[in-house]
Amino acid sequence: MRHTISVLMENKFGVLTRVAGLFSGRGYNIDSLNVAPTNDPTASRMTIVTHGNEATLEQIVKQLNKLPDVLKVQNFSEGEYVDRELVLVKVTVDSKARAEVMQITDIFRAKIVDVQPKSLTIEITGNESKVEKFIGLMDNFGILELTRTGKAAMPRK
Amino acid sequence: MRHTISVLMENKFGVLTRVAGLFSGRGYNIDSLNVAPTNDPTASRMTIVTHGNEATLEQIVKQLNKLPDVLKVQNFSEGEYVDRELVLVKVTVDSKARAEVMQITDIFRAKIVDVQPKSLTIEITGNESKVEKFIGLMDNFGILELTRTGKAAMPRK
Repeated sequence: MRHTISVLMENKFGVLTRVAGLFSGRGYNIDSLNVAPTNDPTASRMTIVTHGNEATLEQIVKQLNKLPDVLKVQNFSEGEYVDRELVLVKVTVDSKARAEVMQITDIFRAKIVDVQPKSLTIEITGNESKVEKFIGLMDNFGILELTRTGKAAMPRK
Repeated sequence: MRHTISVLMENKFGVLTRVAGLFSGRGYNIDSLNVAPTNDPTASRMTIVTHGNEATLEQIVKQLNKLPDVLKVQNFSEGEYVDRELVLVKVTVDSKARAEVMQITDIFRAKIVDVQPKSLTIEITGNESKVEKFIGLMDNFGILELTRTGKAAMPRK
């Protein structure tokens, strides 16, 4: 089962290593992770997407809560939160493919952010299923490079 | 000086901990970091934003290159890359403020992704200066919560 965990923590050096270490120390793989400061520059928020055994995760959440620089841990259930991901994808194009890629980009309300003679770089945001549908379509043209931020999550209430 | 580093690595358990440890072990703070799989599911790409001493960073990049699961390290200079960040921001609103927040959201081509009786959640993407300008404006209404993915970067060529 997949899990989305949000960790609010003090913006101190080494916290990321400790948090990542808690997961890898228990053989728990992280699917995606992102961390950046909040509007309070002394705090950072991390969103972790992971999958695996429920009981192990409960242990990890308990241990996260015990870390001295961790302020709040939320283990989100389906529907309680808003999540979005940003993906940059560079697609190989000739003049014919360029028009097609531009059409699909338009349909997905994605944005072209860079143009090179033989490639286009596109920014798309959305939930996981939208983003993966788009990546699947771009794969038909030839993906040169792809960067995903992993999803950022926020409780609705 | 700020640096943006992109690391392509095998999608193996524990690599994140080792990469984060390289930075914290040298007292180098990470401003933001994100990591997620690429279009090749056996590889992940990580984008790290950091600041500090140039010589120390050079050492870190050398050590990153030596990690067994690291495939490629790029230390981007200004202008060589496209970068984008996604931010979710929940703003407190009454009926008067809601109209104002919606106007500003429109000007920034941001999107409202959730509405609650007393709050709006907005998704904005862009480069750092755009995103920070928007956060600054929202701060006047009252930010309840904020999640940033940190920037994702991709070389232009």
